[in-house]
Amino acid sequence: MGRSGGVGGPDLVDHGPVDHGPVDLKLVDHGLVDLELVDHHCHGLVRRDLTRPEFESMLTEADRPGPPGTTLFDSQIGLALRRWCAPALDLPPHADPETYLERRAELGHAEVHRRLLGASGISTFCVDAGFQPEPLTGAEDLAGFAGGRGLDVVRLERIAERAAVDVLTGQIGVTHLADTVRARLAERTPSTVAVKSVAAYRAGLALPARRPTDREVAAATRTWINEIRGGAAIRLHDPVLHSFLIWCGVEARLPVQIHVGYGDADLDLARGNPLLLTGLLRAIAPTEVAVLLLHCYPFHREAAYLAQVFANVHLDLGLAINNTGRGSIGLIAQALELAPFGKFLFSTDAYALGELFLLGATLFRRGLAAFLADGVDDDAWTAADAARIARLVCADNARRVYALS
Amino acid sequence: MGRSGGVGGPDLVDHGPVDHGPVDLKLVDHGLVDLELVDHHCHGLVRRDLTRPEFESMLTEADRPGPPGTTLFDSQIGLALRRWCAPALDLPPHADPETYLERRAELGHAEVHRRLLGASGISTFCVDAGFQPEPLTGAEDLAGFAGGRGLDVVRLERIAERAAVDVLTGQIGVTHLADTVRARLAERTPSTVAVKSVAAYRAGLALPARRPTDREVAAATRTWINEIRGGAAIRLHDPVLHSFLIWCGVEARLPVQIHVGYGDADLDLARGNPLLLTGLLRAIAPTEVAVLLLHCYPFHREAAYLAQVFANVHLDLGLAINNTGRGSIGLIAQALELAPFGKFLFSTDAYALGELFLLGATLFRRGLAAFLADGVDDDAWTAADAARIARLVCADNARRVYALS
Amino acid sequence: MGRSGGVGGPDLVDHGPVDHGPVDLKLVDHGLVDLELVDHHCHGLVRRDLTRPEFESMLTEADRPGPPGTTLFDSQIGLALRRWCAPALDLPPHADPETYLERRAELGHAEVHRRLLGASGISTFCVDAGFQPEPLTGAEDLAGFAGGRGLDVVRLERIAERAAVDVLTGQIGVTHLADTVRARLAERTPSTVAVKSVAAYRAGLALPARRPTDREVAAATRTWINEIRGGAAIRLHDPVLHSFLIWCGVEARLPVQIHVGYGDADLDLARGNPLLLTGLLRAIAPTEVAVLLLHCYPFHREAAYLAQVFANVHLDLGLAINNTGRGSIGLIAQALELAPFGKFLFSTDAYALGELFLLGATLFRRGLAAFLADGVDDDAWTAADAARIARLVCADNARRVYALS
Repeated sequence: MGRSGGVGGPDLVDHGPVDHGPVDLKLVDHGLVDLELVDHHCHGLVRRDLTRPEFESMLTEADRPGPPGTTLFDSQIGLALRRWCAPALDLPPHADPETYLERRAELGHAEVHRRLLGASGISTFCVDAGFQPEPLTGAEDLAGFAGGRGLDVVRLERIAERAAVDVLTGQIGVTHLADTVRARLAERTPSTVAVKSVAAYRAGLALPARRPTDREVAAATRTWINEIRGGAAIRLHDPVLHSFLIWCGVEARLPVQIHVGYGDADLDLARGNPLLLTGLLRAIAPTEVAVLLLHCYPFHREAAYLAQVFANVHLDLGLAINNTGRGSIGLIAQALELAPFGKFLFSTDAYALGELFLLGATLFRRGLAAFLADGVDDDAWTAADAARIARLVCADNARRVYALS
Repeated sequence: MGRSGGVGGPDLVDHGPVDHGPVDLKLVDHGLVDLELVDHHCHGLVRRDLTRPEFESMLTEADRPGPPGTTLFDSQIGLALRRWCAPALDLPPHADPETYLERRAELGHAEVHRRLLGASGISTFCVDAGFQPEPLTGAEDLAGFAGGRGLDVVRLERIAERAAVDVLTGQIGVTHLADTVRARLAERTPSTVAVKSVAAYRAGLALPARRPTDREVAAATRTWINEIRGGAAIRLHDPVLHSFLIWCGVEARLPVQIHVGYGDADLDLARGNPLLLTGLLRAIAPTEVAVLLLHCYPFHREAAYLAQVFANVHLDLGLAINNTGRGSIGLIAQALELAPFGKFLFSTDAYALGELFLLGATLFRRGLAAFLADGVDDDAWTAADAARIARLVCADNARRVYALS
Repeated sequence: MGRSGGVGGPDLVDHGPVDHGPVDLKLVDHGLVDLELVDHHCHGLVRRDLTRPEFESMLTEADRPGPPGTTLFDSQIGLALRRWCAPALDLPPHADPETYLERRAELGHAEVHRRLLGASGISTFCVDAGFQPEPLTGAEDLAGFAGGRGLDVVRLERIAERAAVDVLTGQIGVTHLADTVRARLAERTPSTVAVKSVAAYRAGLALPARRPTDREVAAATRTWINEIRGGAAIRLHDPVLHSFLIWCGVEARLPVQIHVGYGDADLDLARGNPLLLTGLLRAIAPTEVAVLLLHCYPFHREAAYLAQVFANVHLDLGLAINNTGRGSIGLIAQALELAPFGKFLFSTDAYALGELFLLGATLFRRGLAAFLADGVDDDAWTAADAARIARLVCADNARRVYALS
């Protein structure tokens, strides 16, 4: 994962993802420094240089700057960024925010992204391109920064919203939305490995368990279309339609990623509790199609319970790893209280900033190393067990779920 | 707790519950290696040898095997079993699953249970015999494996369901269900120390706080009986009747055990949140009859809060200790954030497999030792305090609540 | 923070807040032994000596003593009190409860309070005098014990309840309650720095998000007054009125403290989940008036999420620090997973007993030191970062929010 550099000057610096401290020995001992990672859920990178306010706004889930006199760098993610990303830009660890942002501007976004992604050790990226307030890199370009492989995750609500436009423009009738969604999903590209639902942001996760009938879908579509005609935004937010979309993914036998828990200020977090999905998960279970609960914090124990009792349910900590910084060590341990090791996956949920890939990877390696090493030190499991679990969680579970070769 | 063995061969091996590692010193230092345990909530043992799929299905709360290529042994409970149960079968710690299951088959279930229970250090078993998809050992036989004492916990819903059969067969009228339940409870055996409610699995815990009147019970019974006559299973699931049953226990002045939180895939976990019981607990508080919240995970902090603010409310971590393996160290510390030390109890919730008794006991001893020793090391409390707390939690609280001699 | 003492005898003992143990080195290393604290939410002290039952009842949130044979001293807070308060009364650490209470009686409450508050290192006290089942010291007298400064927090419900009395006695009409509340708030003393809502104890936190109109307030007032005339207590418990009161604070541009989560047996804890406030917080956000979520346990992760995503939202752990004793180390770390360091504050929520001030201060210093030192040891942040974060959290955030000079 080192970069080839010139002779002399800052380029000689090794940009490996970790330095040495108490957790570092655990990383080394358990081979987690350079174990390959599959990032089963992330987003593209921004294609331009950023101002400091823009950078800060993309760093966390806050929707505006903190109170006067405060900075979003004074948070776990801010400290983690200074610690782990600064060396990749040839700065000493813990460089202050001003120095970091100056150096970042000096290098330019493309070089920064190349360095950060290259140092992350991520080999495969499953990219949800469904949220793009501005154009971001697609899966292939993104993976190119790391010399890796890019795959696609299709956002279900976008398919439905495109079909709604077709209804609005008279290209299809209101009763054809269901068929149109199914057809679009059938026409997916070969690089599509999963679908994703953002129902948590819209109607919440208390969705109908049973697969809605086409008649029910048509009725809900009619209501929705009328709302849009009445002036509402083209933004799906109907529980029946969200459930229908998830069932479309199941019927196409594509793994279904579902946003759960933690997100930004648009969210009503209480409606993102994964236990609200219990009925739907029970109904999907016999199909054996994989369901992947994303982020889950602060309901990660609840999500892990679901991953234990339903054979097809999996989880990750996604966005929460980055945002909780060093605190992610505790989250990983809690998710692994109940979740079988074959059901827990790595993702960064990185969005726009290359930093979020390196941070997600580094913090995940460190948290997993701490968890595994503590058990080995306590003779609770063997080093061979630890190594096998690490491989499952870092890559093999994702390879199995998404049928990656 | 050692077993008497023959000369030579594997029987010479000491089957004590713990070996030595970082936590072990704490166990030894604080006398927790062989402190007697009262298991205030468990189930019987299976009376036959098991296939691997059968064994795995009884090990965790999952309702079916994991995805192809995974095994339920790759989980905290699987690792803990290999670590702590293998030595009791004369195998090295961390023996692989195949070796473990072969040795288990070789010894036969009776010898295996004798070894595992003998090594657990549990002296008293309070047995809920209310869930028996197949015949399990009763309290006396179970305790016999450990040379201990067996007591009975009566499942309230079974009494009501038997009374429903009496209604259906015309032996009693629909208005007599309440009296019949009370009479059955009054006729209990001398070994009965508590009643138990599984309302969490049925109607959920949002139960009426006030004691239902006999008229309300009769109306609810009528509805229920009509459902059964209409083809439904004889399975109580009415909030009024669940509340009535709990109040029957209270009026009989028997400690009331209530399933809370964690369980298998049949459960709607959100409805098992103990805070839903707040009104009912507030109504019961003046009676001073003990209420025992079982398992509680992931709502153990909520349960501990209830145990702090209501003088008659207690909790355990039951099933969650076994299933979270080494992670149980953290759970015990969290339950003891708010719960007074006089309100926290030990149980295994072991079911069918002798392994679950040894695991529950070993993990509980270790987690409690870690909690107590860390405080002593930090000079937060004294070794004498730690020893007193250990005795309360391991046995004396249960002796007080159930009036055990 | 040492007290000047005579020559010889117990007065020579240093009453500093901490002794030495594993956490203590961290305290010393990171300057947390005597860093000044601003207690942004507390109550007055009782003005008399207490019996043991009275003392125990004020120590925890339990509403009655534990079961026979148990004592509330057998809890985290009881152990912490013996550890940290005994030395301030010239007793050895871990003195038993009887010895402690004897010595307390011997010194008398005034001397005890002078010692405990003097040793706490708290310089500024923001006092909510709204709950006084018996007369307690006001802000000025309280602060006098510590040689500090006392400021006032006005309880919103008391203003409304006084206005209700005015309606009942015919001094104002029912439609004038809104104006009367606003006028009373405008007439506040110069020492008033914040308002506080106890809606969590009354209607719960699922409050209307939008500012209620005066017409809606009048309608709700009419219903309330009729209830009182029908025999109900003068106790506000209407969601519209609670929301109105919070909006009055916002319009007066006073920081709004809101009780969240943990409290005594009067509470329905499930209704105190801060996520229920999401809509209201979203509506208040554009005003930029600070909102302070108090206590929050066991929903502190949820509260920290709100503090991350809404620029004006802050949190503390208040009451939970004292009651969880050494367990508070874990709570602080969890609150700081997501909360920006500029959004987390110190408070004791101490009530009646001087012990709760010293305990709150000592446990907070220790928990914060453990959090910060672990990160420094792991090279996750620098000692300079740790020192800056400590100053923010212990005092500077409160100074900024309440505009303290």
